[in-house]
Amino acid sequence: MDQQFAPITDEEIFDLHLGGKLTVGLTAPINDKRDLSIAYTPGVAKVSSAIHENPEMAKTHTWANRLVVVVSDGTAVLGLGDIGPAASLPVMEGKSALFKRFAGLDSIPLVIDTHDVDEMVETLVRLKHSFGAVNLEDVGAPRCFELEEKVIEALDMPVMHDDQHGTAVVVLAALMNAAKVVGKNLADLKVVISGAGSAGLAVSDMLVHAGIKNVLVIDSKGVLSKNRSDLSGKKKEVANQTNPENVEGKLADALVGADAAIGLSTAKFELEDLQRMADDSIIFALSNPNPEINPAVAREIAKVVATGRSDFPNQINNVLAFPGIFLGALDAKARRITTEMKVAAAYAIAELVADELSADYIIPSPFDERVTPAVANAVMQKA
Amino acid sequence: MDQQFAPITDEEIFDLHLGGKLTVGLTAPINDKRDLSIAYTPGVAKVSSAIHENPEMAKTHTWANRLVVVVSDGTAVLGLGDIGPAASLPVMEGKSALFKRFAGLDSIPLVIDTHDVDEMVETLVRLKHSFGAVNLEDVGAPRCFELEEKVIEALDMPVMHDDQHGTAVVVLAALMNAAKVVGKNLADLKVVISGAGSAGLAVSDMLVHAGIKNVLVIDSKGVLSKNRSDLSGKKKEVANQTNPENVEGKLADALVGADAAIGLSTAKFELEDLQRMADDSIIFALSNPNPEINPAVAREIAKVVATGRSDFPNQINNVLAFPGIFLGALDAKARRITTEMKVAAAYAIAELVADELSADYIIPSPFDERVTPAVANAVMQKA
Repeated sequence: MDQQFAPITDEEIFDLHLGGKLTVGLTAPINDKRDLSIAYTPGVAKVSSAIHENPEMAKTHTWANRLVVVVSDGTAVLGLGDIGPAASLPVMEGKSALFKRFAGLDSIPLVIDTHDVDEMVETLVRLKHSFGAVNLEDVGAPRCFELEEKVIEALDMPVMHDDQHGTAVVVLAALMNAAKVVGKNLADLKVVISGAGSAGLAVSDMLVHAGIKNVLVIDSKGVLSKNRSDLSGKKKEVANQTNPENVEGKLADALVGADAAIGLSTAKFELEDLQRMADDSIIFALSNPNPEINPAVAREIAKVVATGRSDFPNQINNVLAFPGIFLGALDAKARRITTEMKVAAAYAIAELVADELSADYIIPSPFDERVTPAVANAVMQKA
Repeated sequence: MDQQFAPITDEEIFDLHLGGKLTVGLTAPINDKRDLSIAYTPGVAKVSSAIHENPEMAKTHTWANRLVVVVSDGTAVLGLGDIGPAASLPVMEGKSALFKRFAGLDSIPLVIDTHDVDEMVETLVRLKHSFGAVNLEDVGAPRCFELEEKVIEALDMPVMHDDQHGTAVVVLAALMNAAKVVGKNLADLKVVISGAGSAGLAVSDMLVHAGIKNVLVIDSKGVLSKNRSDLSGKKKEVANQTNPENVEGKLADALVGADAAIGLSTAKFELEDLQRMADDSIIFALSNPNPEINPAVAREIAKVVATGRSDFPNQINNVLAFPGIFLGALDAKARRITTEMKVAAAYAIAELVADELSADYIIPSPFDERVTPAVANAVMQKA
């Protein structure tokens, strides 16, 4: 069990946020007129002229090429929903802070006041010379799928919607190690994903790509299947790639005999449903801050339990993935973040646990300093 | 004479720019899971919820309200012209660095890849929750006038095109003190402004507003006057407010009997023309890096000479004005930067020279630490 920390007061939270969490600094001091003549006029004119003659120099002689913008429209912020761009800003500032803290990458939040996908894409295209990578964040499904696809097409730089792929990478890493703990073969697991939002569908993609043959995804109407006529877009795509036995019904039906249950929605896990899972089951109750089931209760019936919380063992935290994925992609000068890179990132995270693997240690801590370099290296190898 | 500094090599300039001049930092460290739970999930959700319920809290609990964006389309970069957004970025990074260095304000550059004024405005409107003030920079005339006007109308925050107003404030400050040195009354000066671009027209506005009755502005075709039929927009407006004697002709004609010549274009000042100015004349040769006339030569015929260069006395440098103007406007929570604020800023800068006033010291050094607080305070008083 991780060590608990002292309770956090609201006062402490609001005090820390006063004035924001980010600050801009200078890479070299400007102490006198000579410094000013180098960093600004007339010296800077030589650098601007050089970039004008050779546009590639913008990548080396400005901060933009390694600057990650954290972009949101504020439509699906944490569990708070569509609270708008201004209210989403503390989350985006936090994300930028994590890029700096865990990957050393400069990052700024840009929140966009529109719900129109094409306007969001257009805005980023107009600003494209100002940054070098785009982390899409907290954009509601299904719009997020179209948005990510269009931004990837429009920009010649690494782009990733972290709520989808960061989550998927860390879930796959954790599931690989959980399978080892319970002594089952990853590919043979029957995995039930509760939730068909951005994270649920991306996790499904990732698990299928990793070779898991029997994945079931549940939305508010039941199991996604080829028999359902109400599906379109990404959900339909996932329905076609999962549920090989064409199971119908609700979450409770899907869980019968399942090896792993992954909660990625507000729907609760009922104890009696979980009890119908296979022996040595795996439960990831990832809703945050309120897991789908009390992890202590889940632990009584399952062999491995993980949550999104920092005060229980096995925290599934995106910060294990996104800093290293962007760092690796930028270091490799990659123009795309590919599925191969993401799978490699998951393997790299899982492998760090090594001999210490146990039911309560299937995934490294976010503060394990080996994580980001290992992920970045794995991503670079695939670039 | 200011102390000269050691020559600057190209290598030194390019080395300093490698990787860019800005960096993002955290206002509080994230060292453990407890820190993470305050700055990111679950703690940050309380701040986002609070802003959602009370939007005013976005101003106090994010960095955005005091973040200055330096915005350019790269169409009029220094003396380099329309070199585009990517090549303009080193200048914009430098400007952001100056905001931090001289006013302690966080600032980021956003370069926009469009020449369409309405698209630039639309882009900033979509991003408005991401920042708290806009410094427009190096946008070509006459588009810059329309752009500034529209951005001011569209956004509820301080907005200023520094090439216009920063220059105008510092020129007015310097001219006030130069008038004292030559023993003439500011309002009675005959002032010739060579150049009718963004800076020339804004300087004209400012001098007229400060009470100077006889201002002449020269464009490539000659003196702006009510008689000219080829003028429109801002130039026409300035023609109507200046040149009370309806002088016609070229720069050489305008300079006859003038008390002050202010160079703000690439047009050179000819020595024989300057010699026809009034006794005890004032010459501001502000083109940078190559003044309209060698200041040492100008000094032989004029009583006061100023340039834009850091290696001659009396440097007219915008950094004396814009950091304090934005700081004062933000501290005062002002929604507009008014002409009254700019005039007050000019007085504040001029007054700092006080008893030390001389022909070679009409304006403080950018590194005089009194400048920004004095300007900010003067602006706040007018807010």
